[in-house]
Amino acid sequence: MFITLEGTEGSGKTTAIKGIAEVLRSEGHDVLVTREPGGSNIGPKIREILLGGDAVSPLAELLLFLADRTQHVEQVIRPHLAKGGVVLCDRFRDSTVAYQGYARGFDVALLEQLNDVATLSLKPDLTLLFDLDPEIGLARQTDKDRLDLEPLEFHQKVREGFLEIMKNEPERVIRVDASLEPQQVQANCLEIIRSRFVS
Amino acid sequence: MFITLEGTEGSGKTTAIKGIAEVLRSEGHDVLVTREPGGSNIGPKIREILLGGDAVSPLAELLLFLADRTQHVEQVIRPHLAKGGVVLCDRFRDSTVAYQGYARGFDVALLEQLNDVATLSLKPDLTLLFDLDPEIGLARQTDKDRLDLEPLEFHQKVREGFLEIMKNEPERVIRVDASLEPQQVQANCLEIIRSRFVS
Repeated sequence: MFITLEGTEGSGKTTAIKGIAEVLRSEGHDVLVTREPGGSNIGPKIREILLGGDAVSPLAELLLFLADRTQHVEQVIRPHLAKGGVVLCDRFRDSTVAYQGYARGFDVALLEQLNDVATLSLKPDLTLLFDLDPEIGLARQTDKDRLDLEPLEFHQKVREGFLEIMKNEPERVIRVDASLEPQQVQANCLEIIRSRFVS
Repeated sequence: MFITLEGTEGSGKTTAIKGIAEVLRSEGHDVLVTREPGGSNIGPKIREILLGGDAVSPLAELLLFLADRTQHVEQVIRPHLAKGGVVLCDRFRDSTVAYQGYARGFDVALLEQLNDVATLSLKPDLTLLFDLDPEIGLARQTDKDRLDLEPLEFHQKVREGFLEIMKNEPERVIRVDASLEPQQVQANCLEIIRSRFVS
């Protein structure tokens, strides 16, 4: 059971993932919580290249993130799935398509192909799309990182990108109303997970 | 004028490239000598990830090398070509196809596609293939690196891979007999370059 959480900045994924994991664990599931980028052993070093002050072209940046994804799939995600565990991953392949494709302008079909290569064609069984007006999400953020500082228009394109991905894969990607109270969001996520995977 | 030198270990590319550059410079050309991996600003850091002792999967390794190649093309090779200079590059996209494709078993068509992405479809105008019995080449090497320590059979597959690439692109890839004396190898390279680019 491989579940990813996707969405724009400040949509509450990180808070929700902890609560969901706790509930699933209390029910006896072997739950791994992980995230991208940075979930692999080389992730922090890749992040260092990207944030270390060197000029890095957008395409080189993309390939570095894909290298991190490959390593993450091979060394972290697949082994946990292979032993029957549940993987909850904060951002995965859809973030690349939404951010670098729909928002930054890389060809979406190319990104999907590169994602297929980098993930060895692993797709999530379920993706929870935390959907929220980016203006509200950004106002929630206290620590602004590089992406948070992009103009609002950029984040609106990201949101539209995620909704487009959902339209193309309605079986896999389910919308979660992230404007609700955290407890309600968590309850809704768990309901979706349970309706999908009868435990 | 973008010229790459390819070949197995110990085939004398590195010695030849210096001599060729010297002659072309003495004739007034603006020559940049560079190499892969490591020719970009982030190359040394990527190399550090690969050689730093962390386990890195073959696919993650490939994507890291491609990230280095993209950066190299965008920040080093293309700018020099754009101002009318000559670029001599020690290893480029064919090494990925020969080493990771023909020798390590990645799908060659996939590698060519990834190369097209990483190079923004830049192909060398001319590739000098330093062809040599790997047994002779390995005996020439004094400092053994990770690749030199692969079994002879591996290096034979690499050689066959390069010859296969040449068969598929006979206009671009020209064989150089690397078993000859260094001075003769250099003279032959210059003759090929001159016959191709009347200066």
